[in-house]
Amino acid sequence: MSAIDLYLIRHGLAGQLGDYVNDDERPLTDEGKRKTKQVAKRLVELGVMVDLILTSPLVRAQQTADILKEAGLSKSLAVADYLATGNMDDWLTWFEGWRSPAKSLALVGHEPTLSAWAELLTVGSATGNLVLKKAGVIGLMVPVEESPIGHSQLFWLTPPRLLLDQ
Amino acid sequence: MSAIDLYLIRHGLAGQLGDYVNDDERPLTDEGKRKTKQVAKRLVELGVMVDLILTSPLVRAQQTADILKEAGLSKSLAVADYLATGNMDDWLTWFEGWRSPAKSLALVGHEPTLSAWAELLTVGSATGNLVLKKAGVIGLMVPVEESPIGHSQLFWLTPPRLLLDQ
Repeated sequence: MSAIDLYLIRHGLAGQLGDYVNDDERPLTDEGKRKTKQVAKRLVELGVMVDLILTSPLVRAQQTADILKEAGLSKSLAVADYLATGNMDDWLTWFEGWRSPAKSLALVGHEPTLSAWAELLTVGSATGNLVLKKAGVIGLMVPVEESPIGHSQLFWLTPPRLLLDQ
Repeated sequence: MSAIDLYLIRHGLAGQLGDYVNDDERPLTDEGKRKTKQVAKRLVELGVMVDLILTSPLVRAQQTADILKEAGLSKSLAVADYLATGNMDDWLTWFEGWRSPAKSLALVGHEPTLSAWAELLTVGSATGNLVLKKAGVIGLMVPVEESPIGHSQLFWLTPPRLLLDQ
């Protein structure tokens, strides 16, 4: 099976909703920035690199994506509104035009969207039984020549605490 | 939800089938032992410790379980035939009698049994789209007070290459 590596990365720890008028503008906390930088460094150490990072436009996701890019995860970064709305059809339309063998991609976004997408891609339905922590990572092999839904393979899922030295 | 941590660990790299009369007796290779020791050490570093390791009776699984116990993953180790046959009902009968809050368990066995069990526990059916490499680890939270099937949560899945420094 010809497949591309797809990484789904949840934004790091962000400020409390009550402290901001607009949810879209909540930034990462200092702790969230620190942990996200550690995760980003570790991903690159482990050889994870991608052709493109797509991020949700919300501040906490864009900050996470900037940290990942800065650590060397990718040279390219773009914003995709469907990572905030969770509209998977929009992503699939784009993805099926973009995908080709040996490409790799990271999506930076939110829960429950990312774990639901991972379940749809691998088992074809979303049960909510996949746990993606903040700054956690999912790794999928997504086929290039058929529908990704129910035909992708899950090879990695990790929370920061099982990735990093404490 | 009251749940126990369940780790499913695949045996390390073993000798080729053609070199042994009996598949049950294939041992880990030197490379398999080395990598399994690294994984075992890393699990303990990350704070993974369990009350009990159950292992398949096949040589490559028992050797893997011995390495895990020696590294400090658990003080207790027992052999369970259903980890070779893959009979999940036998395990469930035992497990539903054994489970209680704050307990933790590791199962050492084979593919495709372990990834199929993980899928049955989380999404209720096995699609074969979950990839468990040799010496790879799956982490599940399994409920204590209801049927585990379709009600467990997947929080970890890692191949050795995304766990260890190269």
